[in-house]
Amino acid sequence: MTKPEDPTRPKARRARGLQDRRGPSLALERGLISSIAKVYEDWGFEPLETPAFEYVDALGKFLPDQDRPNEGVFAMQDDDEQWLALRYDLTAPLARFVAENFDALPKPYRRWAAGPVWRNEKPGPRRFREFWQCDADTVGSASPAADAEMIAMACAALEAAGVKRGGYLLKFSTRKLLDAVLDRIGVPADAYSIRLIVLRAIDKFDRLGAGGVQALLGAGRKDESGDFTKGAGLSLSEANEILQFVSAGRPRRAGALAELERLLGGDSAGVAELQAINTALDALGVSDEQAALDPSIVRGLEYYTGAVFEAQLIGEGGASFGSVGGGGRYDDLVARFRGERIPATGFSIGVSRLAAALQAQQSAQADGPVVVLVMDQARIGDALAMANELRAAGMRAEAYLGAGGMKAQLKYADKRAAPVAVIQGGDELAKGVVTLKDLRLGAAIAQGLGEDREAYAKAREQVQQEVPCDRLVATVQEMLARL
Amino acid sequence: MTKPEDPTRPKARRARGLQDRRGPSLALERGLISSIAKVYEDWGFEPLETPAFEYVDALGKFLPDQDRPNEGVFAMQDDDEQWLALRYDLTAPLARFVAENFDALPKPYRRWAAGPVWRNEKPGPRRFREFWQCDADTVGSASPAADAEMIAMACAALEAAGVKRGGYLLKFSTRKLLDAVLDRIGVPADAYSIRLIVLRAIDKFDRLGAGGVQALLGAGRKDESGDFTKGAGLSLSEANEILQFVSAGRPRRAGALAELERLLGGDSAGVAELQAINTALDALGVSDEQAALDPSIVRGLEYYTGAVFEAQLIGEGGASFGSVGGGGRYDDLVARFRGERIPATGFSIGVSRLAAALQAQQSAQADGPVVVLVMDQARIGDALAMANELRAAGMRAEAYLGAGGMKAQLKYADKRAAPVAVIQGGDELAKGVVTLKDLRLGAAIAQGLGEDREAYAKAREQVQQEVPCDRLVATVQEMLARL
Repeated sequence: MTKPEDPTRPKARRARGLQDRRGPSLALERGLISSIAKVYEDWGFEPLETPAFEYVDALGKFLPDQDRPNEGVFAMQDDDEQWLALRYDLTAPLARFVAENFDALPKPYRRWAAGPVWRNEKPGPRRFREFWQCDADTVGSASPAADAEMIAMACAALEAAGVKRGGYLLKFSTRKLLDAVLDRIGVPADAYSIRLIVLRAIDKFDRLGAGGVQALLGAGRKDESGDFTKGAGLSLSEANEILQFVSAGRPRRAGALAELERLLGGDSAGVAELQAINTALDALGVSDEQAALDPSIVRGLEYYTGAVFEAQLIGEGGASFGSVGGGGRYDDLVARFRGERIPATGFSIGVSRLAAALQAQQSAQADGPVVVLVMDQARIGDALAMANELRAAGMRAEAYLGAGGMKAQLKYADKRAAPVAVIQGGDELAKGVVTLKDLRLGAAIAQGLGEDREAYAKAREQVQQEVPCDRLVATVQEMLARL
Repeated sequence: MTKPEDPTRPKARRARGLQDRRGPSLALERGLISSIAKVYEDWGFEPLETPAFEYVDALGKFLPDQDRPNEGVFAMQDDDEQWLALRYDLTAPLARFVAENFDALPKPYRRWAAGPVWRNEKPGPRRFREFWQCDADTVGSASPAADAEMIAMACAALEAAGVKRGGYLLKFSTRKLLDAVLDRIGVPADAYSIRLIVLRAIDKFDRLGAGGVQALLGAGRKDESGDFTKGAGLSLSEANEILQFVSAGRPRRAGALAELERLLGGDSAGVAELQAINTALDALGVSDEQAALDPSIVRGLEYYTGAVFEAQLIGEGGASFGSVGGGGRYDDLVARFRGERIPATGFSIGVSRLAAALQAQQSAQADGPVVVLVMDQARIGDALAMANELRAAGMRAEAYLGAGGMKAQLKYADKRAAPVAVIQGGDELAKGVVTLKDLRLGAAIAQGLGEDREAYAKAREQVQQEVPCDRLVATVQEMLARL
């Protein structure tokens, strides 16, 4: 159809705060997801895919950024006036799914899911409004063993994704500790907004340090830009009591447990829960190097009710590279729908963030397909057939389909990172041969093969070969096996 | 945090026209995508992932349903007042991406992509508002060989997905044929709305037959519900001329080409294009059983400018099970942004639809993980450790983490399709043994193992075994290998 010309030409630009991903970096992220998914499947979790959007009331409002106009989500109205919102995580849709299908599901229900989530936040450098998560959750188990299993499985998933032992640390704690400290200080159980401010303040411990958190627990804090954040209004001694508990983490789990017992007493529900988690971690063979008890971990999402976890990447010298995942226990999320409490716990790996961190460590350029050049458009069928032959032998291959000449085609092959180019001009056709160029070897020669003259001479000989047509597949295979 | 109780409990329901998918049917769809992606990669296409939504003007308005209020898309407004819309296919975002990154890309640019797309249509039975597509496109090639490659690769992709040869048919044509017929009839080239009505009418040929299309080409058509659709206003003889061309398809491509030559003359640009495609298909070894030339194929999307393709599943006796994919040439889509024309062609497989069609043919229940029962909550660590041991040996395994007794746990194992249950009560612990139940064999016995008394007695013996703890892994492996 020849459509009437649009008078205003649209600008080609992707929407704010989003990214396009292609080639090797996308392949890396896809590879991570399948490695992590394999671990989740091995641990007995089955896949689930819920839609990208849900009714707004079904998602609930649990984002840390809830003061912003549309509360951190992308919302849209359906034909029938109902409000829909893109999911901001994979947990809220899971709660809706479980509540909707409760009777049909095995209990506990163990599921994993991977997919994009969307947050309507202010975009920033390396802060995107669409990113991938890869989650596992156990719904219907109140056992601390289920929390421990999340921690152990997160360790296994990170290792499967290529993070070496010592290169990550799973930190965990439980919100019950904070509840106990606040009870002791005398903050009423129904002073929900104060408790939330305290939670959010502790969640910033990594970034702001003890001083910043102390200010947020007291009158408030002015940041570098001059913006003032109102604090929880606690006294200095109350704030210090909280900070003392926040700092109870130790390199070994047993040491942290002893410190918490000292601070909170042996009959604390939170301490007992952490002890049970620790016992199960020992049974699962999770070492202190892999998982540590750290009460400064509280997580920003509102819906957690007990254990909380966070996965951090660790650089040389023990410095944290920031969080690549987290999770916790959310016993009330299904109850929102059903009334009845359904205990649940889960872990989410931020795949996009993990991929970005791992990519910094990698640089290898993956090989592209073999490219069959086209010397004469009238004989394009021959090139198509040769590509077919190579594919039938298990290689990736394509015929060049543009309109460029020899030089443009070789440049194309280079841009595609093609390992080999296949050329058959008129002379070659008449002789019944093809010319094969080993582009990887050619590049190696161009960079200098070292001082070995003999190796150099041999490589020069191998880089371009004329072979009979029936040796095409075998010779390309040899070239691919060479490097 | 103990949040103040929400006075109105939300209803757990997924949004209209969407679906949740889990377990084996989801695994089937994922498997399809990776099989198809493997073919695309083998043919030299690289992966791309663009965001779920774009600026509305970047997506353009090319949907068949464009008369509906919000034109078939899900739209939402950003903080800065700009309108965004969820992608309705993977082609429009590709055009935006290519226009935005033109200089950096190899030309031709060959990419594949898989992901959900969203259409704001009236939901119906088996008609969902979110579904997956898996696309390949070549941008920057005007060659009919690029169109032929799409057809050949679509055949390879369907076969890789498990559709047997003879179980599908790739039908193709070119919009240039219709343009030629309309020119001949005397419909002006700028009578865009008439040409669009004709296009949409022919697109319904499969569903309405010649009579229905004839009505739509003429005054219009009243459907069963009494709704009237205005027609193109052509005379009966004009309509018949179009119908004659629409019916020019033949079982063999050579036959259809001869018929089109007879109708349109040998110098028709459309016929020449189809001849070139046919020659390339022959070079790629695509048989008449795999791909047929059928001028009734026009495709509903507006943006196609030349070749169009459609993949249909074929049942016993040659009946079509409907389209599972399609595509075509869209030389103007990138030009919308850049002015300059960038020829492009692509193919999209509707993965959700293909999965639904294949699922009807399959019924095998996939095995779940091995389940380690927990007889005593105080010894849950032992169960966790046994599951760990089984996983370390390469099996999927989990410990039961609910609060149920023996009976509930066996029911759970059954619901999870567990092949084996591992049991260690107090007595077994004291003796240093575990009991293993082969649940698949147990189910087979319950269904009757036939008349062979000896086999029955042997199976009864094998279904439950007590083995020393250090034989756990080996015995479970034997049980898994048994069926």
